Amino acid sequence: MNTAIHLQNRPTGRPDLSDFKFVEEEKPTPGEGEILLETKYISVDPYLRGRMVDAKSYIPPFELNKPITSGIIAEVKESKHPDFKAGDFVNGMLAWKEFQVSDGKGLTKVDPDQAPLSAYLGILGMTGLTAYFGLTDIGKPKAGETILVTGAAGAVGSVVGQLGKIFECKVVGIAGSDDKIDLITSDFGFDAGINYKTTDDMKAAVEEACPDGIDVFFDNVGGSIFDAVMANTNRGARVVLCGAIADYNKTETPTGPRVNTTLIKNSILMQGFTVGNYQSEFQKGIQKLAGWLKDDKLNYEETIVEGFKNTPQAFLDLFDGKNTGKMVVKI
Amino acid sequence: MNTAIHLQNRPTGRPDLSDFKFVEEEKPTPGEGEILLETKYISVDPYLRGRMVDAKSYIPPFELNKPITSGIIAEVKESKHPDFKAGDFVNGMLAWKEFQVSDGKGLTKVDPDQAPLSAYLGILGMTGLTAYFGLTDIGKPKAGETILVTGAAGAVGSVVGQLGKIFECKVVGIAGSDDKIDLITSDFGFDAGINYKTTDDMKAAVEEACPDGIDVFFDNVGGSIFDAVMANTNRGARVVLCGAIADYNKTETPTGPRVNTTLIKNSILMQGFTVGNYQSEFQKGIQKLAGWLKDDKLNYEETIVEGFKNTPQAFLDLFDGKNTGKMVVKI
Repeated sequence: MNTAIHLQNRPTGRPDLSDFKFVEEEKPTPGEGEILLETKYISVDPYLRGRMVDAKSYIPPFELNKPITSGIIAEVKESKHPDFKAGDFVNGMLAWKEFQVSDGKGLTKVDPDQAPLSAYLGILGMTGLTAYFGLTDIGKPKAGETILVTGAAGAVGSVVGQLGKIFECKVVGIAGSDDKIDLITSDFGFDAGINYKTTDDMKAAVEEACPDGIDVFFDNVGGSIFDAVMANTNRGARVVLCGAIADYNKTETPTGPRVNTTLIKNSILMQGFTVGNYQSEFQKGIQKLAGWLKDDKLNYEETIVEGFKNTPQAFLDLFDGKNTGKMVVKI
Repeated sequence: MNTAIHLQNRPTGRPDLSDFKFVEEEKPTPGEGEILLETKYISVDPYLRGRMVDAKSYIPPFELNKPITSGIIAEVKESKHPDFKAGDFVNGMLAWKEFQVSDGKGLTKVDPDQAPLSAYLGILGMTGLTAYFGLTDIGKPKAGETILVTGAAGAVGSVVGQLGKIFECKVVGIAGSDDKIDLITSDFGFDAGINYKTTDDMKAAVEEACPDGIDVFFDNVGGSIFDAVMANTNRGARVVLCGAIADYNKTETPTGPRVNTTLIKNSILMQGFTVGNYQSEFQKGIQKLAGWLKDDKLNYEETIVEGFKNTPQAFLDLFDGKNTGKMVVKI
């Protein structure tokens, strides 16, 4: 037998376990030109929340009563496809199932000897590439500038900060616990960190940590933390909008201070993006990241949850910031 | 004798006539290396509101009990400067005075035979250049795309729309009266216009006028009109933030729907600017605009108020949209 995890309801507000359904089905058999895959690691990511609602977006919404899909590392167990053989490991957007068949389209082989398999879902995968392309293509940091990163201990933020140091910038991170602040300043080399959960006046705290103002603001969070940082941006600053996890579970359109006048007065650029925009350059990005990883210029953290059945809870825990670095489920 | 107009109070909220003071002073005499200027045309512009408050900005605030400055065309009446002679006309940031002396720094000569003098404050001056650089450098319109312009009958908006047509785009404008909508669709060649004062559901009206969505949004206005347009932006849209006149007189930080998620989902760029960013390219821009003007590809409107003493009221009238095209005061 085989188990799949379906989207049972389109959540309004914060999702919970009742929005997911475990469905037993027969283990599939590959046809000609197909491969049988066994899921090894599942990536859970905040952006999946967006696909649970039926709204116009850059990727179509999940269908109700169909499996959720996300980045997955799987092992080829059986192959009737000329390009794959049993024992290969592949990375792709696959269904939350223990076993599934695929025609191989959109899958890339990964080498378990070059890096741990889970790294291909993080530092050498979507989150590492998100950090790399967002920071370099939109943020365009110059040596000596100040970069502020929110969600700094997360999968994307921790890479952004380290890249900032590689590019010889001052890097300040915001995160939600003292442990995370310790982590980013010790393991990831951030120059300073602010724990927003224990800070009353975030605007003043950001100003104190960034006395020269902020030139590049890489935002994973949105909401009132975004406002506090924007109040400290310099003329000509670049604001990289990567995520807005503070807003994803809001049932009404979130409101806040308008940024128009700030952007005009200080000639600020603010740009949203998703990593898919850079698909044609992924290989270049992975090579860059792998090089820095090999040279010990990049560290990464993972929160590995064990067991297929814990996948929905691992996803939900993202909204409580229970992960440090990339959150993955190991099957 | 000579009259100057001073800033008497820093307005909170909407400025009024009591914020200005007429001061009589002696008519100055030019020293060696100086020229005596007689003011001919004064430019009044919404951005001056920002300089009336004592806040960090791209240009320092006006000083209390000192003359206001803005773009002015003046005639040289007397010259002790080798580069100027009596009868020359010059354009520069000068004081709101009938007569003043200058050392010539920052002044450029203008030719009254090539275009009417007031044009150098508008279509061939700051407002024309603002339209040109904002649209081309940030908006980057491509033939066939849809451009939406707010403040469409204003000095900047009317040029943006006409440039959009030169670049073979569909152009839709938003303005505040039926006369203005007639003007932009007849004289300025906009494809469609929306009168926001007589439209209940702006979001639906924008959607109807832009069935293919909006690729370039050139905003002079901010506020709820901005929100209605943002709801209709396409993937990869460019939002050019030029002004936010709806917000300039607010006494508290204006709030509105957060745009972060929209910008992320649709990979939208939003950038504020001021024309001064492009100072090194002004001559190139003026040549482009003058060429189109000569080829009858650009029209312009002016609202000319007569009399030095009416300068403060002309400025105040901007916030009621009493101008069509560039507002200038003729002395």
